[in-house]
Amino acid sequence: MSDVDFYAARMERAVLAAVEAGLAGLIISPGPDLGWLCGYRVPAVTERLTALLLAPGRKPLLVVPQLERPDAQHSPGAGALEITGWVDGEDPYATIAGHLDPRGRYGVSDATWALHLLALQRTAPEAGFGALTEVLPMLRAVKDAHEVELLAAAGAAADATYETIVDVRFAGRREREVAADLARLLREHGHSQVDFTIVGSGPNGANPHHEAGDRVIEDGDMVVLDFGGLKDGYGSDTTRTVHVGEPTAEERTVHDVVREAQQAAFEAVRPGVACQDVDRVARQVIRRAGYGEYFIHRTGHGIGVTTHEPPYMVEGEHLPLVPGMCFSIEPGIYLPGRFGVRIEDIVVCTDTAGRRLNNTARELRVVR
Amino acid sequence: MSDVDFYAARMERAVLAAVEAGLAGLIISPGPDLGWLCGYRVPAVTERLTALLLAPGRKPLLVVPQLERPDAQHSPGAGALEITGWVDGEDPYATIAGHLDPRGRYGVSDATWALHLLALQRTAPEAGFGALTEVLPMLRAVKDAHEVELLAAAGAAADATYETIVDVRFAGRREREVAADLARLLREHGHSQVDFTIVGSGPNGANPHHEAGDRVIEDGDMVVLDFGGLKDGYGSDTTRTVHVGEPTAEERTVHDVVREAQQAAFEAVRPGVACQDVDRVARQVIRRAGYGEYFIHRTGHGIGVTTHEPPYMVEGEHLPLVPGMCFSIEPGIYLPGRFGVRIEDIVVCTDTAGRRLNNTARELRVVR
Repeated sequence: MSDVDFYAARMERAVLAAVEAGLAGLIISPGPDLGWLCGYRVPAVTERLTALLLAPGRKPLLVVPQLERPDAQHSPGAGALEITGWVDGEDPYATIAGHLDPRGRYGVSDATWALHLLALQRTAPEAGFGALTEVLPMLRAVKDAHEVELLAAAGAAADATYETIVDVRFAGRREREVAADLARLLREHGHSQVDFTIVGSGPNGANPHHEAGDRVIEDGDMVVLDFGGLKDGYGSDTTRTVHVGEPTAEERTVHDVVREAQQAAFEAVRPGVACQDVDRVARQVIRRAGYGEYFIHRTGHGIGVTTHEPPYMVEGEHLPLVPGMCFSIEPGIYLPGRFGVRIEDIVVCTDTAGRRLNNTARELRVVR
Repeated sequence: MSDVDFYAARMERAVLAAVEAGLAGLIISPGPDLGWLCGYRVPAVTERLTALLLAPGRKPLLVVPQLERPDAQHSPGAGALEITGWVDGEDPYATIAGHLDPRGRYGVSDATWALHLLALQRTAPEAGFGALTEVLPMLRAVKDAHEVELLAAAGAAADATYETIVDVRFAGRREREVAADLARLLREHGHSQVDFTIVGSGPNGANPHHEAGDRVIEDGDMVVLDFGGLKDGYGSDTTRTVHVGEPTAEERTVHDVVREAQQAAFEAVRPGVACQDVDRVARQVIRRAGYGEYFIHRTGHGIGVTTHEPPYMVEGEHLPLVPGMCFSIEPGIYLPGRFGVRIEDIVVCTDTAGRRLNNTARELRVVR
């Protein structure tokens, strides 16, 4: 299939999903959704409007500043688009509004600037607008085979990063030095963008959102390593918890509980299971071991052209898993002031079960 | 003055300006406005709401995700803020709406995500919202003495970059190689961010928005060099047009006309002059020389914590210049398919006249 046919088909499916959700169409501004839908990746988001209008019964319309029109025309899906340029002084909102159902309801991409949305609302005062992740949360949730392979390749690059980092010295170095190693390794393994490199040593590991600081890692520390970014446009995100020198019996126990919870949640993955059940399975293992109050976040999040997106593995998410959904499974236990443990893999739901896209050993690894 | 007093005074002035413009207050999300107003610079913009509410008669309210609250509390203006954290599952929009005049009209920063604005509109359905650059375009336009000095330092760094680049070899190298030199030099001279490095050689110089491509620069080319970014949080932006080898008489003439236009517009700067008059003065020089149809953009734009912002030197902008306004003066002539010339300095309006923040020679420079 040519790039043009590929993006045309993807946009057509998005329109069908929008109509099913009661929408008159979608208005997509620069960001992950735009690149994913039509193949046009905008280097810089500015105050000049760029927007893609998808609606039933019409060719997708891309409105761009005239100066950026050549870039749009060279994008891989350009042949599937009607591209309209506008110059300073013209009103691009009127151009879009002229193609809207005046009383229709439209999904707009989440990060669309207020400047643009307010102008659209003024120009099409009877139309309704809803944020894309609220009106069509699952738009990008089900990945095709090619996307799964890109996520698998990003996962393999993160795994290779982990295999290298466990051989570096931890004791005596600052967390941010190890984090810099992780960032460098992710790039060496093909990542174009590094989104996070968490190094949580000792008590810092007990704060799941600690990034990496000036603390010097010591012998006897648990160290949470959580890192990822984008490779070839698709995300990686994996966590392993290592120990500097020999762990205590309690440290081993906590790590075993998290590993068991992660394994149980992984084994629960299959089409039709509700997202919240993946969370419940992990949580039950941890609760039964007596650490329930120390597992203080959801079990997972989707991943694709961004590193955090729907579907979420969280209580209250009743949506059933569908083959092609890709998401993290990352239970943890956080003992305030002492240490934390988290283990995370990206998992894809296949026709029958889960398949891990991270495959490094999950046993507690002793580092120097 | 302490940082806290400094930001408190700045926010107070913003509230006064908002009230004068008929607004009930301002709602500011992460970006240049937030850092400028309260000193809190957010590393990554996410789907979790961070917002500053400024309104008369109340302490500025900063609503942040609980996990980011420590960062906010360590920001330099934190003492001037009431900081409220929210955790996943809570409704931060309701928190903000609880502090709004239910029927008031609020200015919201331009780049606020549609996701957030739509939720605010839903939570406060009777309130009105307008984009900040539309309802309060001059909020950041008048710089204080410290800001002018930061802009002057950024300008000096750009000038030092230019003084070095004119000694490198142009002929035989690709535009993007020279652009990479410019980016490296800007960073060496203290820029933390490079926003643009335009190298428009020969016919590429005739497209004012050409960036830098694979064209190999040749002997006999005019080359437009337009570059800038942020140094210590404030912007630089300067343009010089150089010539590889000896220019022709026509090339000299065109360059002289642009230089004369730039000089005339600079000399027109003084308090009370309308922005559009700065544009008109430059345009008149070029028109009288017979090149009017080849000057195809506005004469300038403001600069501060961003590299493009109000005030704009453009026909229709009646606003008078005020001491402390900083903006570019950058007329150009673009001969399609042949070459372009642009000369640009950042200029600050003082109590009596203009003061240039770029001071490299404006005569046509011959390079190798």
